[in-house]
Amino acid sequence: MSTQDIANDLVALCRQGKFAESGEKYWAHDVLSVEPMGDSPESRGIDAARGKGAWWQANHDIHGVEVEGPYVNGDQFVVRFRMDVTPKASGQRMTMDEMGVYTVRGGKIAEERFFYAAS
Amino acid sequence: MSTQDIANDLVALCRQGKFAESGEKYWAHDVLSVEPMGDSPESRGIDAARGKGAWWQANHDIHGVEVEGPYVNGDQFVVRFRMDVTPKASGQRMTMDEMGVYTVRGGKIAEERFFYAAS
Repeated sequence: MSTQDIANDLVALCRQGKFAESGEKYWAHDVLSVEPMGDSPESRGIDAARGKGAWWQANHDIHGVEVEGPYVNGDQFVVRFRMDVTPKASGQRMTMDEMGVYTVRGGKIAEERFFYAAS
Repeated sequence: MSTQDIANDLVALCRQGKFAESGEKYWAHDVLSVEPMGDSPESRGIDAARGKGAWWQANHDIHGVEVEGPYVNGDQFVVRFRMDVTPKASGQRMTMDEMGVYTVRGGKIAEERFFYAAS
């Protein structure tokens, strides 16, 4: 599959709310996942990526997801996510506006980096 | 200046249509600029970046620019550009939907990579 094909499929899955499924399908075994926030912004490996996704889903009520893209350049692509969510900790409904930048190697996502708009 | 400060200023300049000015202010001398299209997708150095920008401005009528972001993560940030333009070659007005992913080193833009939505 080309980077464009993988990007299109990942976006289609995310539009259906299938975030975990998109990861299972495309994460490389040693995927590097980078968040801008928290004590350990970098995590390595598919188990860490799974754990992060599971934590996120368990701690947020998701009311709606808008996915834009993909935007492709070579072996990388960008996806924009706007999520209407309520973090269970705060109970305060909010819109998360986020960019994911993905790097593909050997048909798998080798790196994913997430970027947030300052609010 | 922090990456967030540089990102905020670059977005403010671009919102005013000051693309060339934002480059002059923040491009590193040996900036790597990567476009997904064309024969030579990578160009190196501030002269090449200037040339690319000048070519683009000379060959498009720009009717409007919408800039979203910045989205920051560590030493990188993402900006979305939606440009209402008419390429002079085609005369056909269109919307360009584009993501710029920037990497900052030493207070300058060391890399800029541009991503387009398939249309």
